[in-house]
Amino acid sequence: MSTSNIHHTPVNFAQKYSLFTEQWQPKVIAQMNDYQFKLARLEGEFLWHSHADTDETFIVLEGRLRIDFREGFVELNAGELYVVPKGVEHKPYAEKEVKLMLIEPSGVINTGSDTNERTAQNDVWI
Amino acid sequence: MSTSNIHHTPVNFAQKYSLFTEQWQPKVIAQMNDYQFKLARLEGEFLWHSHADTDETFIVLEGRLRIDFREGFVELNAGELYVVPKGVEHKPYAEKEVKLMLIEPSGVINTGSDTNERTAQNDVWI
Repeated sequence: MSTSNIHHTPVNFAQKYSLFTEQWQPKVIAQMNDYQFKLARLEGEFLWHSHADTDETFIVLEGRLRIDFREGFVELNAGELYVVPKGVEHKPYAEKEVKLMLIEPSGVINTGSDTNERTAQNDVWI
Repeated sequence: MSTSNIHHTPVNFAQKYSLFTEQWQPKVIAQMNDYQFKLARLEGEFLWHSHADTDETFIVLEGRLRIDFREGFVELNAGELYVVPKGVEHKPYAEKEVKLMLIEPSGVINTGSDTNERTAQNDVWI
């Protein structure tokens, strides 16, 4: 029997977003080696934090995200990417809900080196 | 003097695509730790190849991509992602030009373990 018709399934961002509405709760959609791709909905202001051991990539899929730094800021619209270098303090902010993808090593906590009331459950797949 | 007005610049995919038209020549647009984000234009058929040491992520930004495997295939439209596991032979194909983003460790060669007439120059930034 030929197996050439096996149709593998890609990860569709819109379909994955239809599965959750919670904000500030990144959901894992794929893994590449020890890195994870996470979708999140953000709205409002987060806390200052940094990741001591890794860079962190933000890609905006819909809406607008601002990331504040201790010196300056960056604004991302849909179709834009920014890599926050490891150790750099940052604070995401979105005036209206923004849909974004995070790419970072598995195990990275959203609040960085601190654990607090904004710390999301890690490694939640959808 | 306040430095809070420093406006950092995100990577804009459309702007980066305006800088090149060559097909099958991935261009690096960002790096996260030892991983690179690359934009590419593909059209037609590539060669069978695999990457022995790493997974490879494809995200389609515009158009449609088919990736053939020795068993089956996957089709990706804009807003879809697929991770080809390490060691798995694959052959990308696009009937019309597709714009995509590749994410993989720096140093990965587009033709995998073989070097041939389709091997692109590596680590070319735009």
